[in-house]
Parts: sequence; structure tokens; C-alpha cells
Amino acid sequence: MQLRGRRVTVLGAGGFLGTNLCIALRRKGAAVRAVGRRQLFPGVFKGMEWVQGDIADPYILTAALEGADLVFHLANATTPHSSNAEKIGDIEENLITTVRLLEVCRDIRPSRIVYISSGGTVYGIPKSLPLSEQAPTDPISAYGITKLSAEKYFALFERLYGIDYRVLRLANPFGPFQLPHKNQGVVAAFVTHALRDEPIQIWGDGSVVRDFVFVDDAIDAMLAAASHFGEPRTFNIGSGYGRSLLDVIHAVEAACGKAISVQFNGGRIEDVPAVILDVSLARGELHWTANTEFEPAILRTVRWMECFTPGL
Amino acid sequence: MQLRGRRVTVLGAGGFLGTNLCIALRRKGAAVRAVGRRQLFPGVFKGMEWVQGDIADPYILTAALEGADLVFHLANATTPHSSNAEKIGDIEENLITTVRLLEVCRDIRPSRIVYISSGGTVYGIPKSLPLSEQAPTDPISAYGITKLSAEKYFALFERLYGIDYRVLRLANPFGPFQLPHKNQGVVAAFVTHALRDEPIQIWGDGSVVRDFVFVDDAIDAMLAAASHFGEPRTFNIGSGYGRSLLDVIHAVEAACGKAISVQFNGGRIEDVPAVILDVSLARGELHWTANTEFEPAILRTVRWMECFTPGL
Repeated sequence: MQLRGRRVTVLGAGGFLGTNLCIALRRKGAAVRAVGRRQLFPGVFKGMEWVQGDIADPYILTAALEGADLVFHLANATTPHSSNAEKIGDIEENLITTVRLLEVCRDIRPSRIVYISSGGTVYGIPKSLPLSEQAPTDPISAYGITKLSAEKYFALFERLYGIDYRVLRLANPFGPFQLPHKNQGVVAAFVTHALRDEPIQIWGDGSVVRDFVFVDDAIDAMLAAASHFGEPRTFNIGSGYGRSLLDVIHAVEAACGKAISVQFNGGRIEDVPAVILDVSLARGELHWTANTEFEPAILRTVRWMECFTPGL
Repeated sequence: MQLRGRRVTVLGAGGFLGTNLCIALRRKGAAVRAVGRRQLFPGVFKGMEWVQGDIADPYILTAALEGADLVFHLANATTPHSSNAEKIGDIEENLITTVRLLEVCRDIRPSRIVYISSGGTVYGIPKSLPLSEQAPTDPISAYGITKLSAEKYFALFERLYGIDYRVLRLANPFGPFQLPHKNQGVVAAFVTHALRDEPIQIWGDGSVVRDFVFVDDAIDAMLAAASHFGEPRTFNIGSGYGRSLLDVIHAVEAACGKAISVQFNGGRIEDVPAVILDVSLARGELHWTANTEFEPAILRTVRWMECFTPGL
């Protein structure tokens, strides 16, 4: 897709995925407006417009969208864990903000919105694996419920007002710019602990299986979704492979060249036992696949963490 | 189920379904607390506790639930049509209120909550008919989205806190105490116009198909759901038959013994073309079926409307 000179707004730009996406868009010559509550890595936003603020504030939201031709909505106010503790706040900050975004887009008329949903939470406990986009959607966290509900408002706004959109149900992304914060990003947490020679604490017995996707591949999927012209609206984006937490730990050990001590804690009720996404729809429609092998991706993550994390 | 002496709270008691449910509960000897913004038929609440107010007000909500052993949640702040015009208000008044209700129930611990969802809107445009509870859920109205989301919070609260619930996805109910108000209740509207010798205005060409269920049958399903002990949580409640708007008009003409003039208007975008519910799960699990034949049910509706509607 031609991105050179296009006016692109990235909501949730300051975080892990947003930072990577903004860098990729800038490299392709897009005129990037990055919107977020904070910048984890301020240096990377050079040459972009930065809008500081929370899109739950309607004034910030309008400023963020004004004149945008293409919008990526990656903003999350909660995590699966925090959402269950603050269910109404999660609805207000995530779902209502997304509906308000769609209302503003009725005026702004961007040519497309790409919404990042959650392949790890919208399905809930799988009846079979891998999960296709048609699998039952019975989330076991408030986070998953509001993500799923938001998806349905996108479909409604397309039907009622012709708002153009694509939804990516993203698996567990990892890679550069992910920090071991806020109960997210087990890879970042594992790598950090390994580099610090600290024991890794994990929830459960380590058998929990996730579909880990390298962030460069996830960003490629977002760009592909921005220019997709087929019928489907919603795509699973993952590696298509399942890896247990213990698999990840072994890969991190190999990449760091040392053993890591592991402490096992009780399982968390909002964790589904296994998620593996069927990514054949994205392969066929977006001509996209997660190209990066797992072990080299872990190695690149370790190298990045060694060089760039402040205060490690 | 033994209802005699049980403390039962009905939310949304003043409306069509709520009025019928309260009468049925009272007849069975339950201690009924009826909660609503208004009473359409104040006389029927004799011998019951009446709590006047909007459950969107947390104070009213707590007063409504205090000491309740069994809760029926029938309250709706919107219709499919109005919800699309006020999407954020619909989330606030319906979805957030329902989540707040669930939060209060973590303290009150009623033995069960029966939630009335919408078989006519949660599925969206059917890919095949009749619709089983496993059919895809892609609502085309904000009303359908918040109903579906609310269902998922019930499941979440059961998983996290052991809140006991059943969901009924109700088809189009009709019968006594339904008034031709607020874009709801085509049967009531048709009967009223027929009795007044006024032309009936319908959206579309009259070919729209709905699953009409007589209110006595719907109330029986609610009582059956209150005492169900099997695994399933969500049940379609309908007649299992599809009838077009023109079918309904013919039945009303037969019941009234006169012809009705019909005016056709444009279709509404939030109307799905056809809904017929597969009710085999309710039959097997709740030992319930819609026993009342359609034509006698229409006749009873006409008789009621002739006798009881003020100012007809």
C-alpha cells in the first residue's frame, strides 16, 4: 500500500505496539500523528506529530482524529487482570471511548480504521484448537468482553454509516519496545529477569499455552489490514503455533546462554489454558504470515533489551 | 418450583412483561417486590411491594435487591430503534446498569438471577433458520450488542464469583398488558388500530418474519428458568414458528371480524428480515414449550385490548 504522505493517526501510540507501528509508518513515509497518554521511548517520535492525552477525553479524541485518512486504534486503558477488578471503568474507558471514536469518524470520514482486538481473550476457553474467527466467543475477562463488544460496534457503524474498518484479533505479541510492566508481556518479563539473574515468577505450572507473534510480523499484519479490499472484516493474527510458558523460558535461556530459576504461583482465573490461532484467513486474504522464526525473534528481543532498556 | 413465600424482585416490573410476571408470581404466593420507573397498570400491583425508580440510580438498585432471593431482570431503557440513535446512553443505561446489578449481587447473593435477553436482536441477520443458541451473534442494533454483552457479564460473574443465572433470549412476546407504545409490540399496535378502524402503518412490505410468542408462555418460561438445574445457561424462548407481519394482520382481522387497511413505509435498517428461534433446548431442559396456539392468543389479546385499554 502507498503510505507516503498519507495522514495516519495512531491511537495508543506510546505503548509497545504503538511505538513499533509509528516507526514502521514513518519509515514508509506516512505523515504520522501519534496519540497517547505517555511515550515510553520519546526519541522514536522524532519527525512525527505527538498528541499527548487520553482519548477518553472527547477534546483529545477530536484533536487526534481531525484530518486523519487512516486510523489505527491500539489504545487500551486496562489489562485482562485489571479489567476484572474495574469492570465498569473498563466499559467506560475502553468500550464507550471506542464508540465515541466511531461517532467522531462519522464526521471525519477516515478511509479506514484498523482496530486491534485480542485473540487471547475474545474466545475464552477454546472448545477446540486452533481457533478460527468463527469459534464461539465467550470471554472469561471483562477485557475480552469489551474488546468483543467494540468489534460489534465497528460492524454496526459500517452497516449504519459506511464506516470502513478491519479488526485484528492479535495473539500475544513480543519484541523490541515491550517492557515488563502491568502484568503484560511475559516474554519481556522473562527476558528482563533472565538478564538480571532474578528468578521468574509465573502463574500456574507453566503449561499455559499461548500463540506468540513477533512484533514486526504483527505490524506487517496491521499494514496489510490497512489496504485489504476483500469481504472479511476480522482476522486472527498470530504465529499459528502454541508455545507453553516453559517453552518460552527455555528459548530465553538459550538466547541468554544461561539457566533461569522459576517460581510457580497459583493460576489466575482470567487465564485461559491454551490459545492457538488459526491464521489461514489472514494468510489468504491479507497475504500475510508470521515470517519470523520464534528462536531468532527471542534472540532479537534479548539483544534489544540488553541495549535499550534504561536501568536494566 | 416452590414460589410460595419466596422473596422475588422483578426489575422492569411496570412494563408489559414485568406486569404479567408480577401477576403470575403473586398468584403462586411469592413475596413480590416490583421495581420500575412507572406502572402502566397500577391496580395489578396490589399486595406487592412497589419500588418506584430507575435502577440506573445505584440507590434504587440496592433498595431493589436488598434481601432478594430470586431476581428477574427485565428492565430496558431503550428499544432497538432508540438504541441506535443513542448508543452511548444505551451502554450506560443498559449495560453498565446490568454490571452494577451483578456487582450488588456479589453482596446480596440471590439464589438466582433470570435475565431477559433478546432473541430478535442478538443474532443479527440469520445465516440459517431456525436460530439455535449456538448461531453466530452479530447484532445490527446497539440494543442487540448491549444485550449480548450483558449476557457475557453474567457468565463472567458466575465464573468469578459463583453468581447463579439463566438467560432467556426472548422472541417477540405479545398479549395482555402490551400497549402500542415506543416502536415496540406490533401485535398491540395492529390490534389497537384495528379496533379504532385506523389504517396500520408498517415498515417494509410486510414480509418481515418474526417469532411471536404469547406472553403467558413467555412467563411460564421465566418461571421454568428460575428452577432449572441443568448445565445450559442460555435459552431461546419463542414459538419456534415464523410469521410475517401480513400473517399477523390477517390473524388480527380474523379475530376482530373486519378488514384492516395497511400503509407500507420504507424498511428500517435495524430490522432483521427474519427471526425464527430453535426452541429445542428449552423444550429439553426447561420442559417448556409455547403451548398457546397463535390464533386463540391473538383473540385473547383482542378481547383484553377491548376491555382494559383506557381511552381506546
